[in-house]
Amino acid sequence: MATQGQVITCKAAVAYEPNKPLVIEDVQVAPPQAGEVRIKILFTALCHTDAYTWSGKDPEGLFPCILGHEAAGIVESVGEGVTEVQPGDHVIPCYQAECRECKFCKSGKTNLCGKVRTATGAGVMMNDRKSRFSINGKPIHHFMGTSTFSQYTVVHDVSVAKIDPQAPLDKVCLLGCGVPTGLGAVWNTAKVEPGAIVAIFGLGTVGLAVAEGAKSAGASRIIGVDIDSKKFDVAKNFGVTEFVNPKDYDKPIQQVLVDLTDGGVDYSFECIGNVSVMRAALECCHKGWGTSVIIGVAASGQEISTRPFQLVTGRVWKGTAFGGFKSRSQVPWLVDKYMKKEIKIDEYITHNLTLGDINKAFDLMHEGGCLRCVLKMNE
Amino acid sequence: MATQGQVITCKAAVAYEPNKPLVIEDVQVAPPQAGEVRIKILFTALCHTDAYTWSGKDPEGLFPCILGHEAAGIVESVGEGVTEVQPGDHVIPCYQAECRECKFCKSGKTNLCGKVRTATGAGVMMNDRKSRFSINGKPIHHFMGTSTFSQYTVVHDVSVAKIDPQAPLDKVCLLGCGVPTGLGAVWNTAKVEPGAIVAIFGLGTVGLAVAEGAKSAGASRIIGVDIDSKKFDVAKNFGVTEFVNPKDYDKPIQQVLVDLTDGGVDYSFECIGNVSVMRAALECCHKGWGTSVIIGVAASGQEISTRPFQLVTGRVWKGTAFGGFKSRSQVPWLVDKYMKKEIKIDEYITHNLTLGDINKAFDLMHEGGCLRCVLKMNE
Repeated sequence: MATQGQVITCKAAVAYEPNKPLVIEDVQVAPPQAGEVRIKILFTALCHTDAYTWSGKDPEGLFPCILGHEAAGIVESVGEGVTEVQPGDHVIPCYQAECRECKFCKSGKTNLCGKVRTATGAGVMMNDRKSRFSINGKPIHHFMGTSTFSQYTVVHDVSVAKIDPQAPLDKVCLLGCGVPTGLGAVWNTAKVEPGAIVAIFGLGTVGLAVAEGAKSAGASRIIGVDIDSKKFDVAKNFGVTEFVNPKDYDKPIQQVLVDLTDGGVDYSFECIGNVSVMRAALECCHKGWGTSVIIGVAASGQEISTRPFQLVTGRVWKGTAFGGFKSRSQVPWLVDKYMKKEIKIDEYITHNLTLGDINKAFDLMHEGGCLRCVLKMNE
Repeated sequence: MATQGQVITCKAAVAYEPNKPLVIEDVQVAPPQAGEVRIKILFTALCHTDAYTWSGKDPEGLFPCILGHEAAGIVESVGEGVTEVQPGDHVIPCYQAECRECKFCKSGKTNLCGKVRTATGAGVMMNDRKSRFSINGKPIHHFMGTSTFSQYTVVHDVSVAKIDPQAPLDKVCLLGCGVPTGLGAVWNTAKVEPGAIVAIFGLGTVGLAVAEGAKSAGASRIIGVDIDSKKFDVAKNFGVTEFVNPKDYDKPIQQVLVDLTDGGVDYSFECIGNVSVMRAALECCHKGWGTSVIIGVAASGQEISTRPFQLVTGRVWKGTAFGGFKSRSQVPWLVDKYMKKEIKIDEYITHNLTLGDINKAFDLMHEGGCLRCVLKMNE
């Protein structure tokens, strides 16, 4: 390819400061070094984690940076030693790496590969602890090891999932974060079994994916909890069978759910990132076996709490990141499931815009009717 | 038997008020009603839960009452419909019932039988919501459905484990609480696997039983944590391989353990009942899979807390009661294991006294050298 080994100048949305509108800039993207992959991003969606870091509430947020972590594209070039993908491969960048060599990957117990974590946390690449993005020589930080709000990005090879080239990239980009997070929380973390009663706190994309996962796992009741009752109509399509709006009750929501379910739910999922809701999600679980899974990301410094009696009497409190999926191994499998119509994706996409509209897309996220907004990058 | 159907007057230690010495009284013990069993208690040990309720810190504590829940004896008589035990059977009263019929028992997921819980929590028997203990007509509350600080007690039939009559009752009485709680936390709740690294907070009877359980499960390192370094010598005999005294370090104990174990322990157990220690026990667990089990009972109103990030990055927080053992089914199995020398009991018994010395026995509990004090009842 003509661009191979060259610096590429392309459009990217740069976050210069917290809470200030992103700026579409001409960004220089350096060629991939050893173990790196440069990807032409064709479609990216927006996720609440992008908004969280952008808001300035993330103490690890680094500015200026290029946000974005839910995307799909085509490999433009690869650095030395990269063997698992080659130019032209269709891929999904994965903010959760999978190296298959580290203590975490080898454990068989977790998807939290640690190989490139110190670099991605610092907004740089492992090789030289530097960024591949710059504007007129001034470096711009990477974000989550993905930085998909750019027409080209550079990622570590352990963070690239090669997928079926037939899969529509404007759809499967959603498999970079929210949908797998919800499905995996049910399938991998909670391991919901047929007949189980499930409560879902927060009916955004992740919550709806939890509902879809619970339905496919055979849950008998899937109770959606949200303070926006308008969400119930959409939620039904994803498997939610009952809806509870905490605003309709005087008593605490955990008590409402315990009363509704003769003692509590078998599994609950917190998909908001609110520590009070995390407590309610635990406490609405059934004594003896109820398991609560935290998915939402709480604001920095906030803590969860409960009486230890809740745990001593058999409830289990856990959490999940990327739904426990091993990214490089399992994202392609999820793509295949989508191609076989075994999981939904299209139904989560409520808006389609272009990179130039990214600030409008962030505004849309805070509106009730928006699930996922997908941006086309090459316009 | 001559006493069958009659009120029995016998000696019992009565707790009239929180924190006041127990009084040895002549107590009238009514005959067992339908579904009840009257047991001649031969030996009882003291446990910290007795001391907790006696201290007045237990908001559910009822006075006057007869404490005690770790004992062994012989069935004196049975009420109508009792089929699983008969007079003369050697038994261990179980504060955690097992009815095999309720939602909990049938779930296959928990040992927390709910059948008699509303009565035992209220210090009475299910049949008539009254006590079988009285002094000159004035009722004395039951405690935990066992009240073993009496030469005779009445319990629900679902709370009686029939054991091998060859087993020495002055030893196997310990299988009523502390030892199974520790062993079961490892075997049933945490499911520690060979090679695992384990941390135990608090090296009393329960903590040592955790160590014994972890050793038998094949743990590679068993780290005992206690602020009394003198406990390490004894702890070695139960399987503890390393000892850490938090007082020897300036940094938080969770950090000490993370540093000692290249990232954290695989399993931790809190055997104290201190909510700050519960947090440390969770936070010393390895990212990705570390599981912390709360065993200790915290003071009323106290809460545990942590950053949700601890759970989102793969740690699991759970708890256990009676080690997850199904009491009637599994206490006899534990007795058999003791008879086959597969588990220790004798080594936990540091003192032997008589019922009349019970206040002295409570004093001993607060001394470092005391694990279990067993009281002989018929003197």
